[in-house]
Amino acid sequence: MPETPHLDRVKSPEDLRNLSIKDLKKVAEELRAETVDAVSETGGHLGAGLGVVELTIALHHVFDTPRDRLIWDVGHQSYPHKIITGRRDQIRTIRQPGGLYGFTKRTESEYDPFGAAHSSTSISAGLGMAVASSLKGEARNVVCVIGDGAMSGGMAYEAMNNAGSMPPRLIVILNDNEMSIAPAVGALNAYLSRLLSSHQFRSLRELGKQWARRLPKAMGDAAMRAEEYSRGMVTGGTLFEELGFFYIGPIDGHNLEHLIPVLRNVRRDETPGPVLLHVVTSKGKGYEPAENAPDRGHALGKFDVVTGEQKKGKPKAPSYTNVFAQSLIKEADRDEKIVALTAAMPSGTGLDKFAKAHPTRCFDVGIAEQHCVTFAAGLATEGLKPSCRFASRSTAPASWAPTGRRTAGSFDITYLATLPGFVVMAAADEAELVHMVHTAAKIDDRPSAFRYPRGEGTGVPLPEHPKMLEIGKGRIVREGTTIAILSLGGRLQEALGAADELQARGLSTTVADARFAKPLDEDLIRLLAREHEVLITIEEGSIGGFGAHVMQFLAMAGFMDAGLKIRPMLLPDRFVAHGTPAGMYEDAGLTASHIVDMALSALGSNSATMPRRA
Amino acid sequence: MPETPHLDRVKSPEDLRNLSIKDLKKVAEELRAETVDAVSETGGHLGAGLGVVELTIALHHVFDTPRDRLIWDVGHQSYPHKIITGRRDQIRTIRQPGGLYGFTKRTESEYDPFGAAHSSTSISAGLGMAVASSLKGEARNVVCVIGDGAMSGGMAYEAMNNAGSMPPRLIVILNDNEMSIAPAVGALNAYLSRLLSSHQFRSLRELGKQWARRLPKAMGDAAMRAEEYSRGMVTGGTLFEELGFFYIGPIDGHNLEHLIPVLRNVRRDETPGPVLLHVVTSKGKGYEPAENAPDRGHALGKFDVVTGEQKKGKPKAPSYTNVFAQSLIKEADRDEKIVALTAAMPSGTGLDKFAKAHPTRCFDVGIAEQHCVTFAAGLATEGLKPSCRFASRSTAPASWAPTGRRTAGSFDITYLATLPGFVVMAAADEAELVHMVHTAAKIDDRPSAFRYPRGEGTGVPLPEHPKMLEIGKGRIVREGTTIAILSLGGRLQEALGAADELQARGLSTTVADARFAKPLDEDLIRLLAREHEVLITIEEGSIGGFGAHVMQFLAMAGFMDAGLKIRPMLLPDRFVAHGTPAGMYEDAGLTASHIVDMALSALGSNSATMPRRA
Repeated sequence: MPETPHLDRVKSPEDLRNLSIKDLKKVAEELRAETVDAVSETGGHLGAGLGVVELTIALHHVFDTPRDRLIWDVGHQSYPHKIITGRRDQIRTIRQPGGLYGFTKRTESEYDPFGAAHSSTSISAGLGMAVASSLKGEARNVVCVIGDGAMSGGMAYEAMNNAGSMPPRLIVILNDNEMSIAPAVGALNAYLSRLLSSHQFRSLRELGKQWARRLPKAMGDAAMRAEEYSRGMVTGGTLFEELGFFYIGPIDGHNLEHLIPVLRNVRRDETPGPVLLHVVTSKGKGYEPAENAPDRGHALGKFDVVTGEQKKGKPKAPSYTNVFAQSLIKEADRDEKIVALTAAMPSGTGLDKFAKAHPTRCFDVGIAEQHCVTFAAGLATEGLKPSCRFASRSTAPASWAPTGRRTAGSFDITYLATLPGFVVMAAADEAELVHMVHTAAKIDDRPSAFRYPRGEGTGVPLPEHPKMLEIGKGRIVREGTTIAILSLGGRLQEALGAADELQARGLSTTVADARFAKPLDEDLIRLLAREHEVLITIEEGSIGGFGAHVMQFLAMAGFMDAGLKIRPMLLPDRFVAHGTPAGMYEDAGLTASHIVDMALSALGSNSATMPRRA
Repeated sequence: MPETPHLDRVKSPEDLRNLSIKDLKKVAEELRAETVDAVSETGGHLGAGLGVVELTIALHHVFDTPRDRLIWDVGHQSYPHKIITGRRDQIRTIRQPGGLYGFTKRTESEYDPFGAAHSSTSISAGLGMAVASSLKGEARNVVCVIGDGAMSGGMAYEAMNNAGSMPPRLIVILNDNEMSIAPAVGALNAYLSRLLSSHQFRSLRELGKQWARRLPKAMGDAAMRAEEYSRGMVTGGTLFEELGFFYIGPIDGHNLEHLIPVLRNVRRDETPGPVLLHVVTSKGKGYEPAENAPDRGHALGKFDVVTGEQKKGKPKAPSYTNVFAQSLIKEADRDEKIVALTAAMPSGTGLDKFAKAHPTRCFDVGIAEQHCVTFAAGLATEGLKPSCRFASRSTAPASWAPTGRRTAGSFDITYLATLPGFVVMAAADEAELVHMVHTAAKIDDRPSAFRYPRGEGTGVPLPEHPKMLEIGKGRIVREGTTIAILSLGGRLQEALGAADELQARGLSTTVADARFAKPLDEDLIRLLAREHEVLITIEEGSIGGFGAHVMQFLAMAGFMDAGLKIRPMLLPDRFVAHGTPAGMYEDAGLTASHIVDMALSALGSNSATMPRRA
């Protein structure tokens, strides 16, 4: 553990308020070391937090948090913030079962006024808080910190467009580090680079001039202001000024001597309307292994602080992401109509490899899932086969795909399968994934999506030649007579484990892999329902998905009429707490032993106890 | 019918290509008259189409449609486009059952390369087409026409941000009429007004200068270009230039003498990258009753061409929208924490009335549903009770709400009820709606949503005092013994009609109104399942919604084990064609007679025909 005499005296942001800049610098140094050390023990997000160490300290020094609201757009940059807002003693539990959450969380601290994982929500939320404080007559500052990558998300623009025409004061700190997870893309990023290169950092004197420009407005000379406004906006303003913000910057976000007086000015200024402070930082700042990594130490496993080397176990099987990427590359080798799209996650989705193999056919659209899907639709209308790969780990080689972020993809199947005309698949293992990539690439008359787990595969051999799956057909993996388990997606191994255990108790069990949530394999479902005493469906999804489709079919076909011991196993109707994958499945009730219990209790259920008129 | 000798000779856009501007003006005049006359007969969208008559003609005159792709961002402005692209003989069937679609539609015409209702999708789709044409080596122009209102949608910005950093040529026409359905709001609109007021319309000479600025770039002097680019962008560019577009305008969108040469220049220019042509038009142009209406004749019933008077039947009951607005106003009178949000539809949602009653507590955020919901979340964190009212006719007084547009809201229940912690209601009639507005206003520990039909209410008396509904409790409306119909939402009257008919056949029928899709009234469902031979659920929603939740509960509680004739009635798994509401329900299979048929066939189903092992 690093020596942290100055940080040790900071029990809450209150303790920063009266420190000199010299002392704040020492706190910053120690906060950086503490952040590195903590993440080295737990793994987690490092680079983003290191980039905002000085900003975190300056904001809490200048503003009256938690009364003033401080919103971190992407919660994974909040580790230093957590350390100095009373959670230091728990920081080495971050992302561990029962420990601190890896993002901001309202129920965790009054210093977290908004819960945010990914991305682009902070200006909208902050505007809501600013409007609320003005309606309630409570004077408070609302500060949003948003990265340049997150600024490419449409919601951030919608919020600026709204804020820029409203009177409440709102302080937006644009944290420009030219990175989100990958280098930022798009015209806005190019614009910010030009803005920076033409001005470099502003000196305090220049910043003073920027403020002076603002003063006549505050003095209420309406005519002068209108003229200056109109002139400034149309002929010389920045993009942010054109959207109604007062723009100030760019300044060095690691320089407390600049940050603090500028933030003080921003806080003191009482002119109505929003302000944007353009701060330039460096992701991974101050920790060499992170500074030198391509993703600037974005997310790491446990690591050695001195060398930066991650303590990763040797993988036993290729990752699903890698299997997906290699399969899509091979499909694209064979079919030049295939193109790949990612929303600012080229490496996390494996599409960085696709881009190397097919550089003209891979597009990173920025953090812009809405646009990504409609862009894909445009490509599809011209006969191409776009594949969008999003963080919720799904893809759609025709024209649509899920857009969940920072989720387990719990709702994917429900919302995709409710759409008419969609083909929706889920892969039971990495070999199945290979077939599904191929199948999706071959489907050319409608949109399709498939889902696969994160992390390592199951270790099954990968097929030499992918096959085209018959649309809407599942497969029986193991034949039995008493109990049927129909699995969609990654719980198949658990279903087989449950079958073993049931067999050991003398209960012959069929296990089938549905492969498709839509269209349903009605023949298979009919067979399972007719030939078994109990039918269990299992999926890694929320209510309304695969199990609902199976029951709808069975009910309408009259299968419930005669009695059917059906038990659809789903994710529970709550957000499952973070933890290890195994722990989360345990919590969700979707393991082999849960399946066994479900089968036994269904078998034992005595329908005679249900009084019925008929 | 108007005299249209010039328009009569236009069988396809080909016939416009060789006409003189003088003749094109005559075609424009007649096209405007024909559009007014057609809509007077069918009702439909008028103002938007009238605003783009000249633009439609100029685009088809200059560009080689359908080989060049012309994408109308909001399909309701496409009536003049439909008339001159071979669909004039069907224009008086628009929005009628079996007739032309009210928006662009790919299967309707090769001149409709993209199907779009509402809004903000055109740049994304157009970029997809432009990239596809460049990948395929097919030289073609792609032209997107997008309104200033639609430009406030985040997807449009995401698309500009992406297009502005890519080489394919893409032509975006910004149709600036300061209106979508209501006057446009937000900073972008204010910016466009300043842009216009500082330049007025550009003369052809000035436009020539704008082009000249571009020439050095085309000449490939990289150094000069880089310098000019950097200088131009940072110190004098418009917002669009800062996003990487070549900006030209503003020009008068009703002046063919300006439009045509400028569009010709745009077509001929081969500099890579996107172009934005800023065109100013007037919604409802040339038809006085539309020009004088507050919504510029946005959407009309049948009307008298001379007077502009709409032939509306006298309503028999207040509209749901009106009941909603009045109820919310009354709630807001009593509770100052209630605020109302709309995404650019103040009149369509009734919130214009709310704004009059509570001007400081009503917010039009622009066409920006994503932002709207997160803005609401920000308000809610500070203890306010935001209510978002969207076009899919639902609301959420805590922090979330559906964002469907130009839909029947088919997917609302499915995707809202799958989210943990939500309260989801649907109103059976306008009296129920009053209670639900009140109930939602009182729920302060979680988000809630309610759904109600469009159009006129059922005519039931409105309650003097709204009551707080017990959360998760339904009501029995009619008691019977053999058949149970459990309705969620607006099909309750049909359920009662079905009960009458079943009674006439000697089949005693219970009818219940579930009120809540989430949480479920488990006691009520248990009772209905136990005490009846057949249980029918009915909802105006897609698969995965209310019926799925009911079946999940019944299956896990063991109710299927002994046999349960359950029949969940849903919207079909396809997009229901447009038509009258009655026709659409008939098509969807959700009328009283469908319920009767379902009940009879379920009763008659002989479960002995189902072979089962157990």
